[in-house]
Amino acid sequence: MTKGFFITFEGADGSGKTTQLNKIKDLLEEEGFDVVVTREPGALLIGEKIREILLHHEEHIADRCEMFLFLADRAQHVEEFIKPALEEGKIVLCDRYTDSTIAYQGYGRNQNIKLLTDLNNIAINGMVPDLTLLFDVSTETAMQRVGEEKDRMESIGADFHKRVRNGYLELQRKEPERIKLINANNSIENVYNNTKNIILDLITHKEEKGV
Amino acid sequence: MTKGFFITFEGADGSGKTTQLNKIKDLLEEEGFDVVVTREPGALLIGEKIREILLHHEEHIADRCEMFLFLADRAQHVEEFIKPALEEGKIVLCDRYTDSTIAYQGYGRNQNIKLLTDLNNIAINGMVPDLTLLFDVSTETAMQRVGEEKDRMESIGADFHKRVRNGYLELQRKEPERIKLINANNSIENVYNNTKNIILDLITHKEEKGV
Repeated sequence: MTKGFFITFEGADGSGKTTQLNKIKDLLEEEGFDVVVTREPGALLIGEKIREILLHHEEHIADRCEMFLFLADRAQHVEEFIKPALEEGKIVLCDRYTDSTIAYQGYGRNQNIKLLTDLNNIAINGMVPDLTLLFDVSTETAMQRVGEEKDRMESIGADFHKRVRNGYLELQRKEPERIKLINANNSIENVYNNTKNIILDLITHKEEKGV
Repeated sequence: MTKGFFITFEGADGSGKTTQLNKIKDLLEEEGFDVVVTREPGALLIGEKIREILLHHEEHIADRCEMFLFLADRAQHVEEFIKPALEEGKIVLCDRYTDSTIAYQGYGRNQNIKLLTDLNNIAINGMVPDLTLLFDVSTETAMQRVGEEKDRMESIGADFHKRVRNGYLELQRKEPERIKLINANNSIENVYNNTKNIILDLITHKEEKGV
């Protein structure tokens, strides 16, 4: 590969995406690839500081302020971490990215999807993932899996989680080339086999094309 | 007045805008108005924290990250300070606002003016000033006035300051109704008399119209 490969992992909490990300990391490293793992929000130091503001702030934080803080974090993450890693030919595995914003803030919280999409595009400055894996799971299964966090998830409301799930599925229908749907209701091994096939297939294709 | 009045003060460092702002505050209070003074960036606690990030950050900060942090500050300032004050019927005097972004980042640093304008509009969510006073001063006079800060200003370069000045003048030509041009090369008293007349004229008009 002359250039890296950028893969994002999307889905609800409890979809198992982080487990799969770590398994894929091990696999790709065994295959001899140079892999880095990252996440949004808050991967870099500035992201941590922004999270601190959001979590421990005495004043009420306006919705638009929060939105711009997340975008600042994303712009920094892309420019100072993801882009350099890809330029060094690495495979970047990122836990949540632009689609999370659209699914959660857009579909989940009913914010303006067109606006969020435009702002995402400004923040990422062209850095669209080569591949996005959407781990789709029923809201019931997701809630069972998150265990002790269940109360928090339930407190937001099942309607919210269903809107998020539908939002993700809508995004996948709009961009089937980039976003691959994975049924994440199955066992870890079953989901892993599907994930592995999709990733190896695409990486092999990319190498053959010499991109 | 049934609703407040929002006035922004714009111009280069050394234009005397802050001096005029304070004199206008005194005048309006003597006239019996309820006046609040504020500034951008960094008027609220969250703004201070954002400034701290920008000033004392170990990593390099990407341009787009910085831009979104300023917008976060502005969104919070509008929503949590300016809007409530205006709803209480106050006169809000603000030292720098959206036009500073366009003049400095857009014209001065050659960033995309259309993009900055769109993002400003998202951040302020309709909160356009009723009146903007542009204190225009020659770059030479501005540099003489800032005294000990002269080195810093000169180090950025006279070309930069000339682009900023031209940017402000361009904005004024585009929106002559909102932005009033004040020749700020003259004495403080002379500038004050011009400023006072413009403000009292507009406030009186607004009261007559019962807006």
